[in-house]
Amino acid sequence: MNPSQKKDIEAILYKSREASHEMALLRDSQKRDSLDTLANLIEQEIEHLLAENQKDLNDYQNKISESLFQRLILNPAKIQQIIQGIRDVRDQPDPVGRILSRRELDEGLILEKQTVPIGVVGIIFESRPDVLPQILSLALKSGNAVVLKGGHEAYHSNLGFMSMVKKLYEQCAWMPAGWATLLDSRSDVHKMLNFPQYIDLVIPRGSKNLVRSIMDSTSIPVLGHADGVCHLYIDAEANLENASSLVVDCKAQYPAACNAIETLLIHQDVAERFMPILDSATADANIHLRGCPETQRFLPNTEAATEKDWHTEYGDRTLSVRIVPNVSEAIIHINRYGSHHTDAILTLNVETQEQFLNGVDSASVFANASTRFADGFRYGLGAELGISTNRTHARGPVGVEGLLSYKFKIRGEGQIVADYVGDDARPFTHRELDSE
Amino acid sequence: MNPSQKKDIEAILYKSREASHEMALLRDSQKRDSLDTLANLIEQEIEHLLAENQKDLNDYQNKISESLFQRLILNPAKIQQIIQGIRDVRDQPDPVGRILSRRELDEGLILEKQTVPIGVVGIIFESRPDVLPQILSLALKSGNAVVLKGGHEAYHSNLGFMSMVKKLYEQCAWMPAGWATLLDSRSDVHKMLNFPQYIDLVIPRGSKNLVRSIMDSTSIPVLGHADGVCHLYIDAEANLENASSLVVDCKAQYPAACNAIETLLIHQDVAERFMPILDSATADANIHLRGCPETQRFLPNTEAATEKDWHTEYGDRTLSVRIVPNVSEAIIHINRYGSHHTDAILTLNVETQEQFLNGVDSASVFANASTRFADGFRYGLGAELGISTNRTHARGPVGVEGLLSYKFKIRGEGQIVADYVGDDARPFTHRELDSE
Repeated sequence: MNPSQKKDIEAILYKSREASHEMALLRDSQKRDSLDTLANLIEQEIEHLLAENQKDLNDYQNKISESLFQRLILNPAKIQQIIQGIRDVRDQPDPVGRILSRRELDEGLILEKQTVPIGVVGIIFESRPDVLPQILSLALKSGNAVVLKGGHEAYHSNLGFMSMVKKLYEQCAWMPAGWATLLDSRSDVHKMLNFPQYIDLVIPRGSKNLVRSIMDSTSIPVLGHADGVCHLYIDAEANLENASSLVVDCKAQYPAACNAIETLLIHQDVAERFMPILDSATADANIHLRGCPETQRFLPNTEAATEKDWHTEYGDRTLSVRIVPNVSEAIIHINRYGSHHTDAILTLNVETQEQFLNGVDSASVFANASTRFADGFRYGLGAELGISTNRTHARGPVGVEGLLSYKFKIRGEGQIVADYVGDDARPFTHRELDSE
Repeated sequence: MNPSQKKDIEAILYKSREASHEMALLRDSQKRDSLDTLANLIEQEIEHLLAENQKDLNDYQNKISESLFQRLILNPAKIQQIIQGIRDVRDQPDPVGRILSRRELDEGLILEKQTVPIGVVGIIFESRPDVLPQILSLALKSGNAVVLKGGHEAYHSNLGFMSMVKKLYEQCAWMPAGWATLLDSRSDVHKMLNFPQYIDLVIPRGSKNLVRSIMDSTSIPVLGHADGVCHLYIDAEANLENASSLVVDCKAQYPAACNAIETLLIHQDVAERFMPILDSATADANIHLRGCPETQRFLPNTEAATEKDWHTEYGDRTLSVRIVPNVSEAIIHINRYGSHHTDAILTLNVETQEQFLNGVDSASVFANASTRFADGFRYGLGAELGISTNRTHARGPVGVEGLLSYKFKIRGEGQIVADYVGDDARPFTHRELDSE
């Protein structure tokens, strides 16, 4: 890169913060117009985008795995989906400015709690070029400024989308120029992580190494999850007819997904009946088992699972199996070894079901449903920002609400606190008023 | 300390995490019984607590500032207030297990979003011994385990309260022994900050140096604020009769408070009329002014404010003053130099008021009311955990809701994701159901 093009990261972030203040003030009609313009620009420039994408495909053919390469490909159908996604976000109700509560503190002294954008969000994602327009649309609708870093494989594709952003600024005068910035390098990302005064939230979307390294290296809140060590527990009172299809769905419907299971727990009372069914179903689905000693007693050809297996996210067709004496031990196993992401029980006993749902300390806990349902689209959240295993801010699948904060407003008539303290203090009324 | 008493911090935190899982399952009746027991224990042992507190007072008399020493004193009236505070928390509705939303994903596949405790909260506080029982009661009601570190000045008083916790375990068998732990040393606190797997949230309550050092040294979310650089802006269309009492309340009603103002902004059109009023009101209230060059033109004896003043939280009776050409410049000043804590405008013009309330990027923004109203009790939140300038999790004054997270539950009938994808995918219904 030409040294004169070298960007001072702090100057970029400062501009993002300034832009965030303008973004927060946009009316919904302006945001709808902007999203419309962005969708139209992409529609008009499909050929340009495909040509940019082709450069990436040429650069990385036979250099990355086939599945990564497939995800790197843009085609007219995928771009139409992207355009439709932007128009769907456009048509959502404005998430900003919603009144969450109203309270009279005293006559003529009204407190309101109202949704606002978070401010500036740093988003780091890998390879897939369709992530960028999705993030742009969610950020725009929620009034946030964004600082982005895409995967190097999608370098030209991402620049193609960013050229639409430049045209968006020209066509929509209300859009502040620092709204969306694409960083060039990993070193810029690491610098960004040292500026909590400019970046309010970081969302890493990618490999667990990426997520873990970001979580460990910043004091800025990070929305996401590093690990997806998920479990299915087959209870003594499970409907075993459902069990094998559920195991296969949880493990093999998409083995690389974070909400696929890694460990199957089986109540000892059904082990003898269920093991042959499991053996045959997993063999059919090309699932490779590792078992505890009890499991090996029933299925002697099974490889032994070690302590490390209970902690491991295989991300492939390997499944560890452990026989447990009761639901309590299943819950203890999950809370100890799991990643608090998504865990499920199969049971017909409602009491056992509720014990499991309450006792398992995970973002998503299911009874009689596949762990693979843990997903923003399936939950009906609209576009998904990511799945969080944090316990603060946002937990589980997160939609646009993950990009929101709130502020308190008071409208008064000149009241001072001195009148509300001391011996003849005026009392507060603290009366709830209608919100929306 | 006897080396045999030395505690392994990771073992303590592990026990806290285990305890948090038991706490999360307590019924409200159990939590009410526990809070009742705690209140009764304190009531029975007032003499013991006063004796322990007297040790602290003996240790620190003439060694700390008079105001700190006053805050260290427990007396029967203060302890009665503590007991009443615990009983008030007892009587609040259970914050855990509230259904935030219910959605049918498909027939017989119901998604619920439900409040849960955060888990384990680390709370670091300084001197005042009445903070400890307040934190204990909020943690208990919200089902959280807590790891605490109090100020060394209140060492014996805090141990006195912790001896009640020990008795609480004996009298309430459902309380897990690791529920509340008091750390001995600052080095234990620093070790704790390195265990995000055990501590879900840190709440520092104390000096800004304490808060800043904690925020900078951990990847665990921190709820709080380091700085309180708050502003009052007197608009061209302000009712100047209210102005001087508002300035005095914002600055001098309690100058050390985080929500007291540091900078007064004045519209240039009212400067000439208001400056003499300000001069006399601040002289009466013993407030010391520092002014911009324009201010000095009206009040020539005023010390000059430098760039550094606009960033400074004095915490005393110093007030910087700047004359601005319009409300937009006031907003820009506040967003640039402020700490996004609490800022207010005095104006009779509703349009200007709304421009200020929307444009100022702070947790609390007020029109025609003192910044000193930014407080959990005054907001009607019940007991206050702290005031947050974060934009994630909780912002502004935070009550018990700051100790809550949520989980998603699905109750199904054996559904698998494979049926909802592909060419003949079953559609989701995504129908909102009544929640509470």
